[in-house]
Amino acid sequence: MPPNESPWIKIISLAPPSLQDNTADAERLLAALKERLQADNIDIDYALLKQLPALLRQWEFRVRCIVVRDRHRWLLTGITDAADDGPVAGLAVDLGTTRVVLRLIDLITGQALAESALDNPQDAVGPDILARIHYTEQAGGLERLKELIVSGLNRAISELCAALPIDPQHIYMIAVAGNTTMTHLFMGLSPRWIIREPYIPAVNKPPVVKARSLGIHANVNARVLIFPNIGSYFGGDLIAGILYSRLYQTDETAILVDVGTNAEVVLGNRNWLIACAGAAGPALEGGVTRMGMTAGPGVIDKISIDADTREFKIHTIEEQPPRGICGSGVIDLAAQLYLRGMIDIRGKFVPAECGSRLAAIDGLAHLTVVSADQSGTGSELTISQADVDSLIRSKAAMYTILETITTSVGMTLMDLKRFYVAGTFGSFIDPRSAITIGMLPDLALEIYTPLGNSSLGGATQALTAIDCLAEIDRIRDRITYLELNVNQEFMNRFSAAKFLPHTNRSLFPSVKKEKGSQSS
Amino acid sequence: MPPNESPWIKIISLAPPSLQDNTADAERLLAALKERLQADNIDIDYALLKQLPALLRQWEFRVRCIVVRDRHRWLLTGITDAADDGPVAGLAVDLGTTRVVLRLIDLITGQALAESALDNPQDAVGPDILARIHYTEQAGGLERLKELIVSGLNRAISELCAALPIDPQHIYMIAVAGNTTMTHLFMGLSPRWIIREPYIPAVNKPPVVKARSLGIHANVNARVLIFPNIGSYFGGDLIAGILYSRLYQTDETAILVDVGTNAEVVLGNRNWLIACAGAAGPALEGGVTRMGMTAGPGVIDKISIDADTREFKIHTIEEQPPRGICGSGVIDLAAQLYLRGMIDIRGKFVPAECGSRLAAIDGLAHLTVVSADQSGTGSELTISQADVDSLIRSKAAMYTILETITTSVGMTLMDLKRFYVAGTFGSFIDPRSAITIGMLPDLALEIYTPLGNSSLGGATQALTAIDCLAEIDRIRDRITYLELNVNQEFMNRFSAAKFLPHTNRSLFPSVKKEKGSQSS
Repeated sequence: MPPNESPWIKIISLAPPSLQDNTADAERLLAALKERLQADNIDIDYALLKQLPALLRQWEFRVRCIVVRDRHRWLLTGITDAADDGPVAGLAVDLGTTRVVLRLIDLITGQALAESALDNPQDAVGPDILARIHYTEQAGGLERLKELIVSGLNRAISELCAALPIDPQHIYMIAVAGNTTMTHLFMGLSPRWIIREPYIPAVNKPPVVKARSLGIHANVNARVLIFPNIGSYFGGDLIAGILYSRLYQTDETAILVDVGTNAEVVLGNRNWLIACAGAAGPALEGGVTRMGMTAGPGVIDKISIDADTREFKIHTIEEQPPRGICGSGVIDLAAQLYLRGMIDIRGKFVPAECGSRLAAIDGLAHLTVVSADQSGTGSELTISQADVDSLIRSKAAMYTILETITTSVGMTLMDLKRFYVAGTFGSFIDPRSAITIGMLPDLALEIYTPLGNSSLGGATQALTAIDCLAEIDRIRDRITYLELNVNQEFMNRFSAAKFLPHTNRSLFPSVKKEKGSQSS
Repeated sequence: MPPNESPWIKIISLAPPSLQDNTADAERLLAALKERLQADNIDIDYALLKQLPALLRQWEFRVRCIVVRDRHRWLLTGITDAADDGPVAGLAVDLGTTRVVLRLIDLITGQALAESALDNPQDAVGPDILARIHYTEQAGGLERLKELIVSGLNRAISELCAALPIDPQHIYMIAVAGNTTMTHLFMGLSPRWIIREPYIPAVNKPPVVKARSLGIHANVNARVLIFPNIGSYFGGDLIAGILYSRLYQTDETAILVDVGTNAEVVLGNRNWLIACAGAAGPALEGGVTRMGMTAGPGVIDKISIDADTREFKIHTIEEQPPRGICGSGVIDLAAQLYLRGMIDIRGKFVPAECGSRLAAIDGLAHLTVVSADQSGTGSELTISQADVDSLIRSKAAMYTILETITTSVGMTLMDLKRFYVAGTFGSFIDPRSAITIGMLPDLALEIYTPLGNSSLGGATQALTAIDCLAEIDRIRDRITYLELNVNQEFMNRFSAAKFLPHTNRSLFPSVKKEKGSQSS
């Protein structure tokens, strides 16, 4: 590919029209593009067509063409002077329920130009998907939610571009990965039937639409690719994760897990892909403990408890005075409490081992994690027996889901050669602690691979690879979705997983060793 | 095809979603449509997608689907209750420079529902294409011309629909045939380079666009198919004419001629098509004589001159008192004057034969056609020597173009087995008179076939046949365009054709006989 070109950008020099060759402007340019792209199905955007005759002559029939692909055709959406080496940008968006991340990409080099993030402005309506879906049932609710996210994105785009600087008009493609509800709200599609049996989205494979028709400020002809979903509970963010992890291309079977209130899991290799999703409970996102919160400055993300002194060694994000604890901190805490014998295999506080840290508040046992004088809030930070119980249910659900999906294909968790942990949360979790409490299987630590923001990574990839939408659709179509039937077998597995690390301790030899070495 | 269906309309009963089959609404419907249409490339209109979940449930998953086709895919643009047998309409438009004709079509039966016509409102800016193109070079000129035609069409649509009545929202497809400049102005594309060497249109095959993006009032998701052109001087109206005449499907070679200021000609059969266009001069449209005008009440369309009394027998449109003369009337008049010896073979008035009808006005010979007391205007209607000279140049140009195109494929005009005369004007011309003056070749009269408004006919066909756009494009692509080089050979032919009926009288045996029988 010549320099300054990319799959989306082609520099074309046309023979100017003559009496001998009086093909129209559009067909003259499209014919050359067809040859360059080796494709027959190319249309020109109508808005661009209106400018085409003047622009071709202004630039003497030497132009840089910007094309996009949708499912059935190529579309010529922009042209510049061939000599113009100014930016042609794409925007990758991770459309999270809580947090939205944007990454501006140079469509020529494929390099990231800048990144920014914002809290999902729909939080003003409700913090979680359920609250937002209910809000859409009010008059104007769907429109308000769409407007909130779109104007939030527009502000972020404007700031991101101003900082570089680059004109938002230079953004020609946008790729958006999000869960099924978030993409529905973004497109203004009613999510009403997503949460009602039998849980049906409006669309699995959203059409490629104009940024303008969504209200997004970018090039007037920019198009938006929205990742497809498999269903109401397995969204485009996961498909983006599969794309990013390359799980679908490898010979060895790997698993990809997005840990959160909902646990979403994909298992497979180049030959097959199976997926499932299930409720793991909010404990894993720090959503239940009174001191729980999502990651942010002053939030405890790592804890260890000294085997001898029982001193709590606490690490907080940005090393601010502790204000709360996030999911990974809770997992660390539970693992450490278990290893020190401060909770038993059922997760119950052991008063003899907890000592003065344990107190009853409103008749419920609470363990002091941070004393009032060391806390960033001025109050004690505690974790209650109910919080630990909740965590144990969540970790048991997570493990049961993992066990169910691997069993469904005749494998065991021990057969996994690669275990991808998706999402920001995945990057924070200490797999050692997660194994200790029996949330993740007892695999060698090097098998665990945090993916970081794989949703954003997949969206970025969609902006750099040709035919990527076709690839994305193929991934989506190849996935067999396993309905998690909460039947007796599932409940038996769940009950067995509700112990630390598990009823069947032989499944966790490393914990036995770890615990043994500690208690010796 | 079941009743109430058509290529564009399919009635689909879906199995409602269930836990076992949780495909999204859009994909559920599209999968069924793909099967019915035997096509894989179907998208759903984004605006319709937003309404889809509610509509599918309102109609219990039994719906009537309205689809359209563009070049690369099918598009689902509308759904109604399956039980709804209300109208689904298409609109065919003949977008003429002077006159615009609309025909509303029932897309289920293919039958015409109503028809109306209006003068092209762009006449306010300029009567002809050249004046309008120059007007687009003023600031806002293109926008004004587009607005004039679009608002004119909207008024006509509104009246047409109100008379039936039918809601314009029930119009889902619009097919527009017009010359290259008119379709450019309609789409808001600059026609600036159409009239400048090397005469390049912005587009040969306009994309299928949303009616809404053109400003046309119809269903919010309606699409507009605009007939492709071959170049600046051979427009979509002619392609529509070829479609309508079925010239491209027949074994025997036929010719299709659109007679006007510009003469456009297609020659061919199922195996090949060749076309050309050339200026014939305005005389053939009644545009030069002082009494000339386009067809309308009181306009002379037929004349005969009594061989003995020299009395002029005049027929006017709607039999109103004569106010002027249109192209077909001028051809009749010239033929009759020639047969009665009142003009000679060069088209010059013969004073001895014209008698008192001949008078000099401003030094130029004029022949009285209608005396002041019989005229609808209160003044004499006359034709001058200059008018006749102009007609002779026009008819000579017409014949030369016909001769050039047939010669180019090694045929003679006498080889033609079918001669289609397109346009309203074509319906008015008396082929006998046209042969007498040597404008049309001396073929048996039954070979001449007036097509009527073949542009509207072709546009209507585009609304009734499946895959019609592909067929239209194929017709367009098959045509070899012959540039009429005004070289010595052309000029020689033109000079020879400037006599009545022709220098080579053996080419017109029937005229020799007719004239002979008259003068005997």
